[in-house]
Amino acid sequence: MRKIDHIGIAVDDIEASNKLFAKIFGKENFKSESVESESVITSFFQVGESKIELVSATNENSSIAKYLTKNREGMHHIAFDVVDIKAEMARLQSEGIRTLNDQPKQGADNKLICFLHPKDTNGVLIELCQEIEM
Amino acid sequence: MRKIDHIGIAVDDIEASNKLFAKIFGKENFKSESVESESVITSFFQVGESKIELVSATNENSSIAKYLTKNREGMHHIAFDVVDIKAEMARLQSEGIRTLNDQPKQGADNKLICFLHPKDTNGVLIELCQEIEM
Repeated sequence: MRKIDHIGIAVDDIEASNKLFAKIFGKENFKSESVESESVITSFFQVGESKIELVSATNENSSIAKYLTKNREGMHHIAFDVVDIKAEMARLQSEGIRTLNDQPKQGADNKLICFLHPKDTNGVLIELCQEIEM
Repeated sequence: MRKIDHIGIAVDDIEASNKLFAKIFGKENFKSESVESESVITSFFQVGESKIELVSATNENSSIAKYLTKNREGMHHIAFDVVDIKAEMARLQSEGIRTLNDQPKQGADNKLICFLHPKDTNGVLIELCQEIEM
């Protein structure tokens, strides 16, 4: 794991949160992106080598919508940048840490992603992500 | 805010979590530190320019102990490295974001720290931290 790629923050209202985090960071988000397959809209702020990703649901079937019916807005996941996501998934599985999917999925921000099972990681929802070479 | 200094993760059992995160990162923590004034023990892993800080309570009066009576283990706070913590506190207060203390406090890892009010930051507990010059 080379760095924290991003911290995901679940929010109810992406527009209001964009304004709030622009105040916190003293600068605007640098991009916004919809991920249709996950029914989410995302917004990214750069801080050093990492990003803060605001994530909001676009319909009630989104995992973020379901999360926000049980939990308050706030930190949702932490994503680590990896060089070879399949090798990292295999390494972690060999350590007894379950992955939430067997194969990497397409995520936001041009990434292949895979989440680890939070029951195996002290309740922290950890995402592995690998930049897709263009 | 120059970078994510660290992500704080509240854990019940610091020894068990040290072993778990050593598996996740494929390397050992690089330091462990008690903060008597906060009744916590901390453990740090380096990932890129940022750190993962495991935090566990050493007695029931610790804010982490109180947190863990109401919440499960998991992500507790995100800390941003700042150049001038007093200037940053004043800037954020002028934007209507409350700080949890009026003056910076001494924190772990040789830092001056101040938390922002999570009700003003989308439920995210944000820490500002400034390295103390030796």
